[in-house]
Amino acid sequence: MKKPHLFAPGPTPVPSDAVLAMARPIPHHRAPEFEALLAEVREGLKHLFQTTEEVLLFAATGTGGMEAAVANTLSPGNTALVIRGGKFGERWGEICQAYGITFTPIDVPYGKAVDPALVAAALEKDPKISVVFSTHSETSTGVLHDIHAIAQVVRKTPTLLVVDAITSLGVVDLAMDAWGVDVVVTGSQKALMLPPGLTLVGVSRKAWEVVERSRLPKYYFDFLAERKNLSKNQSHFTPAISLVLGLQETLRMIRSEGLQKVFLRHERLATAMRAGVTALGLELFAERPSPAVTAVKAPQGIDGTAIVKTLREKHGMTIAGGQGSLKGKIFRVATMGYADASDVIVALSALELTLSELGYPSKPGEGIRAAQEVLRHSEG
Amino acid sequence: MKKPHLFAPGPTPVPSDAVLAMARPIPHHRAPEFEALLAEVREGLKHLFQTTEEVLLFAATGTGGMEAAVANTLSPGNTALVIRGGKFGERWGEICQAYGITFTPIDVPYGKAVDPALVAAALEKDPKISVVFSTHSETSTGVLHDIHAIAQVVRKTPTLLVVDAITSLGVVDLAMDAWGVDVVVTGSQKALMLPPGLTLVGVSRKAWEVVERSRLPKYYFDFLAERKNLSKNQSHFTPAISLVLGLQETLRMIRSEGLQKVFLRHERLATAMRAGVTALGLELFAERPSPAVTAVKAPQGIDGTAIVKTLREKHGMTIAGGQGSLKGKIFRVATMGYADASDVIVALSALELTLSELGYPSKPGEGIRAAQEVLRHSEG
Repeated sequence: MKKPHLFAPGPTPVPSDAVLAMARPIPHHRAPEFEALLAEVREGLKHLFQTTEEVLLFAATGTGGMEAAVANTLSPGNTALVIRGGKFGERWGEICQAYGITFTPIDVPYGKAVDPALVAAALEKDPKISVVFSTHSETSTGVLHDIHAIAQVVRKTPTLLVVDAITSLGVVDLAMDAWGVDVVVTGSQKALMLPPGLTLVGVSRKAWEVVERSRLPKYYFDFLAERKNLSKNQSHFTPAISLVLGLQETLRMIRSEGLQKVFLRHERLATAMRAGVTALGLELFAERPSPAVTAVKAPQGIDGTAIVKTLREKHGMTIAGGQGSLKGKIFRVATMGYADASDVIVALSALELTLSELGYPSKPGEGIRAAQEVLRHSEG
Repeated sequence: MKKPHLFAPGPTPVPSDAVLAMARPIPHHRAPEFEALLAEVREGLKHLFQTTEEVLLFAATGTGGMEAAVANTLSPGNTALVIRGGKFGERWGEICQAYGITFTPIDVPYGKAVDPALVAAALEKDPKISVVFSTHSETSTGVLHDIHAIAQVVRKTPTLLVVDAITSLGVVDLAMDAWGVDVVVTGSQKALMLPPGLTLVGVSRKAWEVVERSRLPKYYFDFLAERKNLSKNQSHFTPAISLVLGLQETLRMIRSEGLQKVFLRHERLATAMRAGVTALGLELFAERPSPAVTAVKAPQGIDGTAIVKTLREKHGMTIAGGQGSLKGKIFRVATMGYADASDVIVALSALELTLSELGYPSKPGEGIRAAQEVLRHSEG
C-alpha cells in the first residue's frame, strides 16, 4: 500500500466533507434550493476576500479568471504595467498581448520580490497607465510579493491594481477593501480545498466604475452580467454546480477555523517546512518566501527532476519541479489548504529518504527535527 | 420522503459510477496516471464526436465553448451567418456582436426548424461569409434543426459550419466527419451525464486551417495551444480534473451501450414522452422535435410556470419552464443522458397529477398508457 500524498502547489487535497457535498444529487441551478446555497456562498466569499463588494464565480480555472480581469478592466488603446518575475507574472503580459494591450513590464529576477518603489516610479513616469497587474504568491518561484505595499502606491492614483491571488487567497492576509486592491483573482484548487474548475474574482467599487466603461470583447466572462444575476442569487450561465456545493462546505470550514487562524496555520507549516529543508543543508530559492509553496534549490549534482520522480515513484508523493528555465534547478513543496503539521512531517521524511537515495549526504531525521522545533514553539 | 427527480434539459442526473470516480483523490494533472486517463478520454471523445480529429476540453460550461468557437474561427472584418430560432441560436449572434463580427441572421419562428434552402440562398448571395453558426437541438424551443442537410449545403463552400450540439451530442446522430460539420460544441451536464463545468469542442481538418489564421483575441480558449498540449496527453492550463475522471466513466458507459443504441434509447424515450403528453390532449411546441427535450404548450388557462412550480413543490420533480417570451407559455421535460423508461413513466405520472391539481380536465393514467404503448413496441 502506498497512500497518495499531494503536496503540489495546486491541485491540493479535498477534505471529505467537500467530497461528500459534491457527490450529492445535482440540484438545478435555477431551483430555490440552489439559490439559498448561492446566497450563503456569496457571503462566505465576501468574508474570505475581506470585501463588501460582490465576488464573482465563473466555471473556469484561474487563468480564465485572469483573462476575465483583463477583458473587464481595459479598453482598446489603454496601457498597463505588468510585474513579472515568474511564469504567472509573465502570464499577465501574455494575456494583455493577446488582447492588443500595450504594457510596460517590471522584470524582477526569478526568486526576488518586486520593489514597490519601482511601481511608484513607473506610475509617476506614465500616469496614464490604466491597470497594474501583479502576482501575489508567484507559484513558479515561491516568492510572495508585497501587495500591501504596492496597493499603498496604486490606491493614491486613478490606476487599478489587479492581483493574481490564486495561491495566496486563504493562505496569507489579503485585505482587499482595507488595502485598496481592485481586482483579486483566485481558483478553487488551492486554499479553497476543491478540485479545479471554479475561478473567483473580487472587484472593488473603484474597479466597478472602470468595468462599466470597459470595451474589450467578452461574453462568457462578463462581470456586469454576472453581478446582475448574482444579486438575485442566480448565475448568468450554468455554474459549475458540484464545485459550488463543495465551496459551501470549504467556506464553512474556513469560517469555523477563523480566517486569521487559517493564515497562521499556513505560516506555521511553511516555516516548519523551510526550517526542515534548511536543516538538510538545502537552500531556499525565494528571497521573500510565500507560505503557499516552498521552492528549494536542487543540491549541486542532483537533478531536481529526479527528486520529483523519486518522490512520486518510490514514496507516492506528488510535489512540483521547476518550470521553464527553472526546470531541474528547483523543486516545490506545498502544504496549502487542507494541510496540517502531519503533512510537513510526511513530506520532509520522504524528501530526506529521496535525497539520501540520490546520493545527497544528509542525515535522515535532521530536517524533521528542525521542523518539529518550529511546530513545538508555535500554535496550531 | 420525496426523491429528487431531475428532468431538466440540463443539468441531468449523474450515474453513481461517475459520482464515485469524481470522489477519488485528485491526481495531479501532470502525473503519468492522469496522462494515461487523458489518452483514454481523447479516444472516447473522438468516438463520441465521430471524428478522427482532436476534441478539445476546456474547464468552462457550454457558453464558454461557444465563445471559444467564435474566437478561434474568425478574424476582425470577417462576417458570419447566424441561424436563430430560440435563446441559444440568439446566443451565437450575441457572441459575434461582443467580438465585433457583423452577421446576417436567419430568423426562424420559435418552434420551427430552419429550412436548409435558406442557408444555401444566404451563402449564394454572400459567398464571403466565413462561418455559419447553428444550433442542433435548440433547448429553449425543443426543436431539432437538420444539421445533416445544412452541412450538405455548407461543405461545398469554403465557409465553416459551427454547431452548438450542447443538447444533441450523445442524444441524436451527429456524424461530424461524415457529414462535414466543422466545429461541434458540447457540455458535460447533458448527455455526458456529468455535473456542469466542462465544455468539449470538436474541430474538423477544414476548420483547423482557419483556426491557424484566426486573429480574434483569445488566451484561455486557445485551440492551437490546447491541441499541442493534448497531443502529449497534457492540457495547456489546469483542467477540471474531477470532471475528467467522471468523463472517463461516462464515456465508457456510452461505448459499452453502443453509440447507435444510445441514440435509439433517447429517441424511444422522447417518442414515449411525446405520445404521453399528446394523449393528455396537450400540444407539442416544436414542429421538428428534439429527442433531448420535449417542449409542451401550457394548456389554455393554465400558467406554465404553475406547472413547473407544482411539479417541484408537490412531486419533487424538476422540469424547465419557458424562457424569455415563452415564459409561462410552455414547459420542457427532458429524459436525457442517464435516463430510461422508468423516468418517462415517473415524469408523466407527476405531470398528470399536477395538471389535474391545476384543474385541467384529463384522466390521470391516459398519458402513461400511451407512453407504455410506445415503450412496448420499441426496443431498449
